[in-house]
Amino acid sequence: MAQTSIILRVELNHELVSFGDVAATISKAGGDITSIDVIRPGKDSSIRDITVDVAESEETQVVDALKLHDGIKLINVSDRTFLVHLGGKINMQPNVPIKNRDDLSRVYTPGVARVCTAIHENPRKAYSLTIKRNTVAVVTDGTAVLGLGDIGPHAAAPVMEGKAMLFKQLAGVDAFPICLDTKDTEEIIRTIKAISPIFGGINLEDISSPRCFEIETRLAEELDIPIFHDDQHGTAVVVIAGLLNALKVVGKRIENVRVVVNGIGAAGVSICKMLLAAGVTQLVPVDREGAIVRGGTYEYPMWQWLAEQPQVQGEPGTLKEVIVDADVFIGVSRGGLLNGDDVQKMKPDSIVFAMANPNPEIAPDEAIPHVRVFATGRSDYPNQINNVLVFPGIFRGALDCRARRINEPMKLAAARAIASVVTESELNEQYIIPSIFNEKVVTKVRHAIIEAAILTGVARRIPPDFR
Amino acid sequence: MAQTSIILRVELNHELVSFGDVAATISKAGGDITSIDVIRPGKDSSIRDITVDVAESEETQVVDALKLHDGIKLINVSDRTFLVHLGGKINMQPNVPIKNRDDLSRVYTPGVARVCTAIHENPRKAYSLTIKRNTVAVVTDGTAVLGLGDIGPHAAAPVMEGKAMLFKQLAGVDAFPICLDTKDTEEIIRTIKAISPIFGGINLEDISSPRCFEIETRLAEELDIPIFHDDQHGTAVVVIAGLLNALKVVGKRIENVRVVVNGIGAAGVSICKMLLAAGVTQLVPVDREGAIVRGGTYEYPMWQWLAEQPQVQGEPGTLKEVIVDADVFIGVSRGGLLNGDDVQKMKPDSIVFAMANPNPEIAPDEAIPHVRVFATGRSDYPNQINNVLVFPGIFRGALDCRARRINEPMKLAAARAIASVVTESELNEQYIIPSIFNEKVVTKVRHAIIEAAILTGVARRIPPDFR
Repeated sequence: MAQTSIILRVELNHELVSFGDVAATISKAGGDITSIDVIRPGKDSSIRDITVDVAESEETQVVDALKLHDGIKLINVSDRTFLVHLGGKINMQPNVPIKNRDDLSRVYTPGVARVCTAIHENPRKAYSLTIKRNTVAVVTDGTAVLGLGDIGPHAAAPVMEGKAMLFKQLAGVDAFPICLDTKDTEEIIRTIKAISPIFGGINLEDISSPRCFEIETRLAEELDIPIFHDDQHGTAVVVIAGLLNALKVVGKRIENVRVVVNGIGAAGVSICKMLLAAGVTQLVPVDREGAIVRGGTYEYPMWQWLAEQPQVQGEPGTLKEVIVDADVFIGVSRGGLLNGDDVQKMKPDSIVFAMANPNPEIAPDEAIPHVRVFATGRSDYPNQINNVLVFPGIFRGALDCRARRINEPMKLAAARAIASVVTESELNEQYIIPSIFNEKVVTKVRHAIIEAAILTGVARRIPPDFR
Repeated sequence: MAQTSIILRVELNHELVSFGDVAATISKAGGDITSIDVIRPGKDSSIRDITVDVAESEETQVVDALKLHDGIKLINVSDRTFLVHLGGKINMQPNVPIKNRDDLSRVYTPGVARVCTAIHENPRKAYSLTIKRNTVAVVTDGTAVLGLGDIGPHAAAPVMEGKAMLFKQLAGVDAFPICLDTKDTEEIIRTIKAISPIFGGINLEDISSPRCFEIETRLAEELDIPIFHDDQHGTAVVVIAGLLNALKVVGKRIENVRVVVNGIGAAGVSICKMLLAAGVTQLVPVDREGAIVRGGTYEYPMWQWLAEQPQVQGEPGTLKEVIVDADVFIGVSRGGLLNGDDVQKMKPDSIVFAMANPNPEIAPDEAIPHVRVFATGRSDYPNQINNVLVFPGIFRGALDCRARRINEPMKLAAARAIASVVTESELNEQYIIPSIFNEKVVTKVRHAIIEAAILTGVARRIPPDFR
């Protein structure tokens, strides 16, 4: 039962109520008082903040009980999630203090003019003399935020700020959230190009399909810094990492398995491409209208591309039909599409990644008895497939070697690096993917990205540890 | 004589040269060794970083002497200004650490979804739950950077980063540099509007005239956050602050003085407008073609506007003609336009603000014997007119009261606040303007801005200290 912590700001009318009454009311409703702060003392009335631990399911009861009590005015209810967001989650810091006029004359006028001139004469010096070297834009238009959909740029900001925190804490990358007040593909491309000079890379985030494909492709062509749409490739990289380890657990080879991918949107397309690059020979992409078959004709260019790949299977069918005798199911679609009977019809030692948010394609408790390896995007079951494992290390590596782009070999190298963090002796059905707090993840992904960037000729700098 | 500190990275061939030889060479050329670091020791050769204090004029001698010496290979010369810029001057910091899965679930998925939903339902909550409350964009297109002109967005970045440092250190404002890769007025307006949701204000910087007027005016109309072109208004506010105090020193009233303003570009226009708002009744704006006269016809809309103001004088003339019998000269143009004879012809107790960069309109040593109060933009003479006195406090105040815009009364209030930091007993010819390190400046400017914003109805929030 999930616990939460809430802070109740109440005004007590001392004629009508004592603090003992308040405490009793909270306890009776299921809450546990952990601290009290007096915000405004007073003779006739006082304002206090009461911190209460409570089961999430009982939060409403506690709040309602206080609201109904005579002499208690409930001013505000904050929970810890909201409190941690107050004032935003990131801030800027100067790298050195400006203590006196002498310092000022170096970091600002007149001294800074010489630094500007040096960059003007040789623009590549922007990488050594400005924040470009370590700074990434996390850009969204707010159209496909988490499971919430098109909630707009203001409401998307907390996700982008959270991502910026993770970039810094996990990989030392400085990331700044850019939330765009436009949904127009061309306008988005123009805007990102216009603001690009200060950034060493662009992380696209929560931009809805199919616009996300055009935006990423065009930016990759028209800018010389790496562009990475995390919803596509972050998800694909971590799925491939998990799959490589799951196949080891069940003792199957990637070229021998039949893989069903359900949901051919932003993430699904990238997953299919990476599966092919990784050696899958029997691929069944499925969307709402059933399997996308080899030789078929499709409206979306990405579906058409899939229909032209030799590894894509030719038999039509619904999801429930094509999953029969599949070795691997990867879902990036929506909750409740499958049940225990469906996955029971897969090949023995089956692998199921059910990653729809917040509810997986099949309920974990229904799937687990029938499959050998089961993974979701959720943190309350083993094997959480989380793209927080991917983007910090990818950009750490790309920035360190000043990669021009992030190409397919780099993504595949990143997937292998993540998989390699789980050692042979640790590997089992419940542990195919490392924790995001495992410090080896960023180090190994960075190393793999730089190595692949150098090999494929997109690195513009050889980092000291690669010389 | 200006001293600088340089770091010389040298490789010494031990057969040909000893460290004593190196030290002697540096001394003889005029340098003073202050520290030595061995970067790579070795039997046959070694690499060392030698920090040397030297007069700026003798830096080349030291470098050349080492270059010509047998057995010394000069690998690199860095001076302290460049060193402080390595890797950029600002970084992002998370406001709280993410220590475990529980923290992660609050600042990122799944917990963050509730915060996003709250903002989606009430967009004003962006001010409490995201960085918008305290974050300003410092936006340039790199067309009018310092005295360097159109050096482009990459080369402009060090100035914007320096400004971001000052914003944070002096006023606690988080500022992020946006360097635009476009000079098109409409494109700049569109881009700034598109990225505006995460920002609580926009500081325009180093955008050339006359595009800067259109960009600022349009953004102020089309966005509901404060827009402030610092080159115009920052300069104007600090000039008016200095002038108010200078007039006190010489015992003249603002409504009785004749003021010549030379250079009617970005800063000059804003200075003229503020002078009129502050009560000047005899104004002589001058540009390359001489005085702009009342009733004249001009191409630039801003000049035309001036020609329609009743306080603008009707007599034509060159700068050297109209300065005769003027009480006040304010120059925001270029160096070396005036000499001692010119300023001698001004009224007794004259005030001269010669602020062209890097060389003032009249050399300080030529002016000082003939004028009562003399000020420049330079830090090596008294009375430095520096807009670092202005923008931190203006934005601190505007953010704290969530001002919709920064209007003329707010700017005039800021100028009066800066002037008021110098007390009656401190005020004299050499001290009309406070130091940028005087902590009262930001506090007083903030207070004045909030007060004026509330009075003029542009504040959307009453800060606690104003309730």
